[in-house]
Amino acid sequence: MGSQSYYRDQDDDAHRALASYWVEPLNQLEGEEQVQVFLDAVEQLEASELGLLLESLPVSERRALWPHLPHEARVDVLVAMRVEARDTLLSVLEPAQMDQLLDDLDAESLIELADNLSEELVDQALARMDSQQRTWYRESQEYDEEQIGRYVDHDVVVLPPNARVAAALRMLRRYQSAFTDRAYVVNRKGVWLGEVTLHALLQAEPDTPVRHCLDDEVVPIPADTPVLEAADRIEHADMSMLPVTDEGGRLLGRMTVRLGMEIVREHYEGQLMASAGLDEEADLFLPVWRSAKRRALWLGINLLTALLAAWTIGLFEQTLSQVVALAVLMPIVASMGGIAGSQTLTLIIRGLALGQVTPGNALALCRKEIGVAVLNGIVWAAVIGAVTVLWFGSQALGGVIAGAIVINILVAALAGVVVPMVLDKLEIDPALSGSVILTTVTDVVGFFTFLGLGTAFLLG
Amino acid sequence: MGSQSYYRDQDDDAHRALASYWVEPLNQLEGEEQVQVFLDAVEQLEASELGLLLESLPVSERRALWPHLPHEARVDVLVAMRVEARDTLLSVLEPAQMDQLLDDLDAESLIELADNLSEELVDQALARMDSQQRTWYRESQEYDEEQIGRYVDHDVVVLPPNARVAAALRMLRRYQSAFTDRAYVVNRKGVWLGEVTLHALLQAEPDTPVRHCLDDEVVPIPADTPVLEAADRIEHADMSMLPVTDEGGRLLGRMTVRLGMEIVREHYEGQLMASAGLDEEADLFLPVWRSAKRRALWLGINLLTALLAAWTIGLFEQTLSQVVALAVLMPIVASMGGIAGSQTLTLIIRGLALGQVTPGNALALCRKEIGVAVLNGIVWAAVIGAVTVLWFGSQALGGVIAGAIVINILVAALAGVVVPMVLDKLEIDPALSGSVILTTVTDVVGFFTFLGLGTAFLLG
Repeated sequence: MGSQSYYRDQDDDAHRALASYWVEPLNQLEGEEQVQVFLDAVEQLEASELGLLLESLPVSERRALWPHLPHEARVDVLVAMRVEARDTLLSVLEPAQMDQLLDDLDAESLIELADNLSEELVDQALARMDSQQRTWYRESQEYDEEQIGRYVDHDVVVLPPNARVAAALRMLRRYQSAFTDRAYVVNRKGVWLGEVTLHALLQAEPDTPVRHCLDDEVVPIPADTPVLEAADRIEHADMSMLPVTDEGGRLLGRMTVRLGMEIVREHYEGQLMASAGLDEEADLFLPVWRSAKRRALWLGINLLTALLAAWTIGLFEQTLSQVVALAVLMPIVASMGGIAGSQTLTLIIRGLALGQVTPGNALALCRKEIGVAVLNGIVWAAVIGAVTVLWFGSQALGGVIAGAIVINILVAALAGVVVPMVLDKLEIDPALSGSVILTTVTDVVGFFTFLGLGTAFLLG
Repeated sequence: MGSQSYYRDQDDDAHRALASYWVEPLNQLEGEEQVQVFLDAVEQLEASELGLLLESLPVSERRALWPHLPHEARVDVLVAMRVEARDTLLSVLEPAQMDQLLDDLDAESLIELADNLSEELVDQALARMDSQQRTWYRESQEYDEEQIGRYVDHDVVVLPPNARVAAALRMLRRYQSAFTDRAYVVNRKGVWLGEVTLHALLQAEPDTPVRHCLDDEVVPIPADTPVLEAADRIEHADMSMLPVTDEGGRLLGRMTVRLGMEIVREHYEGQLMASAGLDEEADLFLPVWRSAKRRALWLGINLLTALLAAWTIGLFEQTLSQVVALAVLMPIVASMGGIAGSQTLTLIIRGLALGQVTPGNALALCRKEIGVAVLNGIVWAAVIGAVTVLWFGSQALGGVIAGAIVINILVAALAGVVVPMVLDKLEIDPALSGSVILTTVTDVVGFFTFLGLGTAFLLG
C-alpha cells in the first residue's frame, strides 16, 4: 500500500484474499518471520481460504503454524480442509487443545469432523452441546453421506402460520446470516407449509398473519435426495436457498446455493481424482509411505489388466518371432482404440451426470457413436495402412493393420456407450472404473485382432 | 397424482422438475402424443432444465418440438443450451421466428447467443435495444470470454450516497429478483463506494442517508479477473452476490453465486471433456459427419505419439526377433509408467486449479512424488520381475523388466510434476494436453529402457 494508486491496491487486496498469494512467502521464510506472515494471512483470509493455505504447506510447516491460528478460527478452518489434510493436524493435537476444540463444536461442524474423531471424542463433543444441537446432529445421521439430509443447515427463521408480519420482520431483522431474505412457515408438527420472502413481508400490513403472504410454489427437497441432484435443483431453481424436508414432510432445515456450489466442485474434483484412482479427500502432502500404499492398489489393478494384455500377445509368440514388424506396430492399434473409446466414454459419462443420457435415448446414441466410429475407423485405417506400407514395404501388413484398426475403433465405440451405462445401472460410478475397463477391452481386442489377422494372412 | 399419498406426489414433483424425467417418454412417443408430453414438460421445467431436455433429444426431435415452445420461453431456453446444441435450432430458424427472437433479446442474452449469430444479426438485435441495454452489451465486449466483466448482470439496485433509507427500502421493495437483499452505493461518477444490506436499512432511521449504513468491507471483483478466480472469491466470501468494477473503480454490475456455480460446473466439465480432446460446448447428438471430423484431430495427435512409440520399438527389431518375450512384456512397462505418472499428474493439476500448487512448493512436491515413485517402483518391479521369472523361466529377463519398471515409474513421477507446471507457466491448460505429453514420455521411456536393457543383457 502507500505510494501506489488506489486501484493497484485494490487489485493487490483481491489477491491477498486468495490462499495461493501466501504459499510462496510462507514456504520461503522460517521462524519468527514465517509466523509473522502467517498472522498477516490469517487477517486477510476467510476460513475456507486458510484451510486451502494450510493444505498447500508441507505437513511439518502446517503443524508448526497451527498453534498460531487464533482459537476462534480453528473449527472453521478444520471444517474447510480435506479429511486427510485435517487429520495431519488433529492426530497430533495436545489434549488441552483437543478439549478446547470439542467445546467449540456445534452440530454442523461435528458432522464434518466426525470422520476424523474417535467415537469417544464424538460422544464427548455431543455431551457438551445443548439439546437442540444434539437433536440436529442425530437427525443428520439418519441420512448417509450421499444424501442432502446429512448437510442441511439450521440458520433459518421458522415461523408458525399465525405469526404477524411485524413479528416476522423483527425476527428476520435480528438474523444476520448469509442468504436470509426469507423465512419458512411450518405447522405445529413442524410440517413445511411454504415460505415468506422479506419482499412479501415488506409489502404486507404489519398485523396480517404470515400465512396470507405464503409462497407455496416452492417445492422442498426431500432429505433422501442425492446431493448432486439437490445441487441441480437449487441451480436450476435460481434460488439462494431451498427447504429440505423429511419423509413426513417435516422441515429439517435449508440447503443454500453456496452448499450446492461446494457439492458440484467436490463432485467433479472427485471424478477427476477417481479417474486416476485417487481420493478427493487426498492430502497433497500425505507422507510418502502412506501415499505410496494408497496408490499401490490402482497400480495393482492396472497390472492385472496389463498382464491380461500381455497374455493376449503371448498367444501369438510364434507369429511375432516370424514377423517382428507386428511387435513394432501393435501399440498403435491398441492406442487408437483406447483414444476413440475414451472420447465416447467421456461424452456418455458427462451425459449421465447431467441426466441427458437415459435408457430412453441409449439406442439413438449407440447409432450415432457407431456412425462416428465407422467414419473415423475407415479414415485412420487408411492413413495407418499407408504409413505401414511405406515403412515396412508390405501391402499385406498394411491391410492387416487397417482391418485391425477398423474393428478396434468400432468395438471401442460400442464399449464407450455400453460400459458406462451398465456401470451406472449397477450404481458404480463410471468415472472411477469406466476408463480401466474400456482400455482393457481396447488393448485386448486390439492386440488379438491385429496379431490374429497377422497370423492368418502373413505367415508362410 | 390423485390416489397416491401426498408425499409420493411431492417426490414425483421433484423428479418432474428434472429434465431426465422427460427424456424417455419423449423418445418413445410420436406425433400429437409427443407434443402433449412436451407441453407438460414445458409447464414443469425451468428454462435451464428445458435446455438440458432439448439437448437430450436427437436433432430431428429437437427441431420438431421447438415450434411448440412458447415464444416467451425461447430466449431463456436457448441461453441455457450449449453452443453447438443451440446451433442445431438457430441454424434452421425461419426468418419470421428469428425476427421475433431478435426482438426478445436483451444485453445479457445477446452476450450468450452472439457466438451463434452472424454479425449482421447481432447488429440488428443491438439496433432494437434501448440505449441502456446497448451500453451494457458494449461494456461486456471490453472483456474476453475468460474474464468476469463479460458476464456481470445488472439486476441490482444502485443508489447515490445521499439517498435516504426510506427511499432505498422503497426501491428494494419494488425489486423482485433472485438474491436482491442488498443495494450498491456509487458516487456521481459511478465509482463503487460500498453496499447497504436490507438488514442494515431495516435497522436505520428512515431519513438517514444510506452512506451512514455503508458496509465498505466488501472488496469488489475487478472486471478483468479470470472467471474461475471470481467463482472462488464468491464461494469463499460466502456472499450471494459481489460487485464487479472496471479498472477505474466504476461499478459495472454484480456477480451472483448462481453464476459462480455455473462457472465451476462448466470449468470442470470442460476439463473432463478436454482430457478426451472434446469441447465442453459439444452436442451429444452432433451429426455423425461433423462429430467424426471434430474428433479426428485428437486421434491424429494420438497417432503421432503412437508412431513415436512404434519408432522407438523399431530401433530394437533385431533384439525383438531374438527375444520374443520382450514383445510380450513391453506393454506392461509402458502402462505401469503411464498409470503412476497420471496419478501424480492428476494431483498436480487439481492443486494448480485450487491454487495449492505454486512455484513456492514445487520442490517439496517433487521430493514427495519421487519418494512415492521410489517406493512403488521397487515394490512393483519386484512383483513384475517375479511374475516374469515364473512365466518365462529367465532370471535375466526378470531383472531387465524390474530395472525398466523402476526407471519408468521414476521418470513418470518427475514428468507428472514438471509437465503440468511448465504448461501452466506457458498458460496452456494442463488438463487438455498434460496427459498426452505424459503418456508419450512414459511410452517412449518405457519401451526404450526395457528394450535397451534387454539388448544389453539378454543378447548373445
